[in-house]
Amino acid sequence: MPFRISAVISPAESVPPAAAALVVDVIRATTMAAHLLEAGARELLLTAELDAARRLAERSGALLAGERGGLPPEGFDLGNSPREATPELVAGRGVVMTTTNGTRAALRAAAVVPEIALAALVNAGAAVRWAASRGGDVVLVAAGREGRVALDDAYAMGALAAGLRALVPEAQFDDGARLAEALFLAHPDARSVLAVSAAARALEPVGLAADVEACSRSDTLAVLPVLADREGEALRFVPVYPKGV
Amino acid sequence: MPFRISAVISPAESVPPAAAALVVDVIRATTMAAHLLEAGARELLLTAELDAARRLAERSGALLAGERGGLPPEGFDLGNSPREATPELVAGRGVVMTTTNGTRAALRAAAVVPEIALAALVNAGAAVRWAASRGGDVVLVAAGREGRVALDDAYAMGALAAGLRALVPEAQFDDGARLAEALFLAHPDARSVLAVSAAARALEPVGLAADVEACSRSDTLAVLPVLADREGEALRFVPVYPKGV
Repeated sequence: MPFRISAVISPAESVPPAAAALVVDVIRATTMAAHLLEAGARELLLTAELDAARRLAERSGALLAGERGGLPPEGFDLGNSPREATPELVAGRGVVMTTTNGTRAALRAAAVVPEIALAALVNAGAAVRWAASRGGDVVLVAAGREGRVALDDAYAMGALAAGLRALVPEAQFDDGARLAEALFLAHPDARSVLAVSAAARALEPVGLAADVEACSRSDTLAVLPVLADREGEALRFVPVYPKGV
Repeated sequence: MPFRISAVISPAESVPPAAAALVVDVIRATTMAAHLLEAGARELLLTAELDAARRLAERSGALLAGERGGLPPEGFDLGNSPREATPELVAGRGVVMTTTNGTRAALRAAAVVPEIALAALVNAGAAVRWAASRGGDVVLVAAGREGRVALDDAYAMGALAAGLRALVPEAQFDDGARLAEALFLAHPDARSVLAVSAAARALEPVGLAADVEACSRSDTLAVLPVLADREGEALRFVPVYPKGV
């Protein structure tokens, strides 16, 4: 049976059926998600709306993380900067993350794909090992930016596609996966590509340009946030440490 | 004033405002359009529907060109193969072209952009010279394939983006234009990229794989199909020969 890899590079496109989906919002939501779990957070609850995030956190005693215009909203414990995700702050805690593009992408994927995880460059190896062992086709789903293609997400999807091809050389790629893979293979230096993306440039005026470096690191974290269930409108992700396939 | 280049790589995305749009359906509609005008066709009428195409051709005495499943529909004078566009057949004639993705992309562009042309690799130089001299921002609009990103269109958009950057080095690129340009710059051999696209592979079972070579030629035609006006639901394109900017 063929093993198919699809990449939905644009958030405006529908997600095709697959056994597993890797949702990518590399600057910064899915990078932040991996860092939070690596730092010992017990679980992540993703939700798009600020009010829902505040209600969830109040009910569960979880920390609040997220951003509007790049910075933490009022009353939040953390922003969306991976550098803030320290064990001192998050170990043993649940974290409610509010991220509009990332949550929407995860919801779009969850509507057609049974198994969902959050992938970034920092946990690309873990993501690829997990996805390749789900027993069926894999779809990569970009969060994008304001409904459009995002260069940083396309690049990270390319890293994931190339990693999947390394594990499963006979994998069949759709045009989106080929496009992403070509971008990744042509530019070994992730930081140089991510730095010119619209998402990276939006971090400059709020003094968070250094986050781009954190989002550009490749395969430094072994943890993958995997969708466990829902709590109301929120998606609950728990830490998984995928082994070799 | 900044000169902005945007690329709408996915047909599912909205087209941002600009002074001029280059619509790309490189395998094969926009390549065919350039070949028809180069061979002496007087004008092209683009329409998505078969029935509308037949009515238009009957009314105007134009030739009928287009495909369904890769091959010319019943009663058509030509398919969508650039190799069929010979002066013997088309010189001095109007041609009604039915192409679903290409017409839709042109209509989406025409709804927000005042000046529209059909671009491919074969007339990339002409397209770039024309677009750069429209006096404002340029948007590249991919026809795509079944509502998704198409590798061949992304590659041709990359050639156009790189050409625009050569003419206007200070041009500001959006993420889509950067992604397309990166694909193009990493792969000087157009044919090797186009050949693995879903559009190219769909031509194999109908014996038209040789069309991919015709669509891969770079800058061999000096003519650009430019939108002149509408005739009912159809878009009328006429030949323009852009000079240097």
